[in-house]
Amino acid sequence: MSLDETARKPHDALAALLADEMTAVNALIRARMASEHAPRIPEVTAHLIEAGGKRLRPMLTLAAARLCGYEGDHHHRLAATVEFIHTATLLHDDVVDESRQRRGRPTANLLWDNQSSVLVGDYLFARSFQLMVETGSLRVLDILSNAAATIAEGEVLQLTAAHDLATDEETYLKVVRGKTAALFAAATEAGGVIAAAPEEQVTALRDYGDALGIAFQIVDDLLDYGGVSTTLGKNVGDDFREGKLTMPVIKAVATADAAERAFWSRVIEKGRQEAGDLDHALALMTRHGTLSATRDAALGWAARAKAALAPLPDAPLRAMLSDLAAYVVARVN
Amino acid sequence: MSLDETARKPHDALAALLADEMTAVNALIRARMASEHAPRIPEVTAHLIEAGGKRLRPMLTLAAARLCGYEGDHHHRLAATVEFIHTATLLHDDVVDESRQRRGRPTANLLWDNQSSVLVGDYLFARSFQLMVETGSLRVLDILSNAAATIAEGEVLQLTAAHDLATDEETYLKVVRGKTAALFAAATEAGGVIAAAPEEQVTALRDYGDALGIAFQIVDDLLDYGGVSTTLGKNVGDDFREGKLTMPVIKAVATADAAERAFWSRVIEKGRQEAGDLDHALALMTRHGTLSATRDAALGWAARAKAALAPLPDAPLRAMLSDLAAYVVARVN
Repeated sequence: MSLDETARKPHDALAALLADEMTAVNALIRARMASEHAPRIPEVTAHLIEAGGKRLRPMLTLAAARLCGYEGDHHHRLAATVEFIHTATLLHDDVVDESRQRRGRPTANLLWDNQSSVLVGDYLFARSFQLMVETGSLRVLDILSNAAATIAEGEVLQLTAAHDLATDEETYLKVVRGKTAALFAAATEAGGVIAAAPEEQVTALRDYGDALGIAFQIVDDLLDYGGVSTTLGKNVGDDFREGKLTMPVIKAVATADAAERAFWSRVIEKGRQEAGDLDHALALMTRHGTLSATRDAALGWAARAKAALAPLPDAPLRAMLSDLAAYVVARVN
Repeated sequence: MSLDETARKPHDALAALLADEMTAVNALIRARMASEHAPRIPEVTAHLIEAGGKRLRPMLTLAAARLCGYEGDHHHRLAATVEFIHTATLLHDDVVDESRQRRGRPTANLLWDNQSSVLVGDYLFARSFQLMVETGSLRVLDILSNAAATIAEGEVLQLTAAHDLATDEETYLKVVRGKTAALFAAATEAGGVIAAAPEEQVTALRDYGDALGIAFQIVDDLLDYGGVSTTLGKNVGDDFREGKLTMPVIKAVATADAAERAFWSRVIEKGRQEAGDLDHALALMTRHGTLSATRDAALGWAARAKAALAPLPDAPLRAMLSDLAAYVVARVN
């Protein structure tokens, strides 16, 4: 079955259950991305935010808070916070990666300029901190400021690990925790904290977000080598061309013989790529079972995410979060 | 008398009085700019932080807190916070402006790359928020997150106002408040708040920082057209070449006749500059008294800064802050 028919269901079920809350969050996002003095800011932000991202991270915050019985409205601020941090990192990532497309549209750095992407990203970071300060929860501030530091650290680590064949799975996991899982984990943990959930549940939510984020990123990296489905419109081979050391490459390098190692050294380390190199890389990955081993790793993290949910209340929302973990890896099943 | 002989004295007096505290702040800065996973981060940060910036902003925080009788150590965290925010904005500014020199050394974006400057800047922003969260003061968090938003907004406004001859002094003031005065004002106000100073004194400190920052930036913009002294090693004409609408240009455009207006339109709006244009611009500014009017504006803001200090305790630190206001404009006297 295709992604569109089945795998989206858990995400849609969550979106339907949280529709009213997401309406409130979207109104807050629109209000706070405004700028009295600099109209360029909402232009750039709207271009990205209204391009139809899945709003997965803010939904996780709303779901976590509601699952823990929260009845206030600070979780709206936290959901908007999380989406702003995510949007800011996308704006900066596109400058760093010199990307030209995001969510099927030209990137902001292409439509405007790198300057606008850097500065509007900074503005959204600052706006996100204003929003979380309004919740008055120092613990939430601690969680989210730590996440912001971990994200930036993961991105720098990725930058310096690129082209380095010595990168191992441990380093890869640090990069993935930084660039993706840190915000997932903070999104769910902050939801539990604002609901004043018992510690055991807060830990469960953080572990769920962490494992979900790791599974999500491994799948993303797998799809960059085609995965099984290529219906997502991802450009297969982007990571390969940029010399990124993602799990499929790390596993392929680990099992390489001398000739294969010379190949990886040329295309990844030295960046001297020729026509047919991506096909050869895919052939090597298929021969060594690298892609299926990567898929297994993603399935393992999805299973950990599901298992982490055990201490949480047995409610429909918990089942949806569990289904969501299955969904993120269903993309490559 | 030259800058080196006299004008630095107030800054040096402050530095001497606060030497022990600045040692603690510098130790905190070094500890927090570290990164367990990404050694690139402290490399880039150290390049900039150890290039011998004046540490003016963190000293303002320390001075404000001490002047209001603070005896704890959270002001060290706030001083480090302020320096991290400042350093992060410098890293991003140099990417935005494609600068090649800062503090007499090659910029980080030149020595490493734009990617590192963007991401390390993000890391320092996040680190600054962690530091301020540790103070446990929601009011301080509010002040500094608002300042961060105002800074980014001012930078975006400056970007969109560049090359626009319609930019007036009101817009210029917004840009200056954003890019410079917001952090000065937050630095002094946060010092007063952490000391639990009476509201009247907190307001006085904020007003002082605001006026000092505006005076500081106007002088900086004046020096870009030579000012009176060019001993600071600034490259005269950088703003002119970048088409920035700073006070000297705004005042010159406001008094321009038709021929002069055509000149400004060509060099600033259309950016079509030829040899001799900067000299012609300076001649126009001299003829219309633009540069001395700009200096008068700076002196006016310095006087406001001094006057703002009245409600604060009559202590040596207050006199030093007053002298500091004289110092920032002494650069063009």
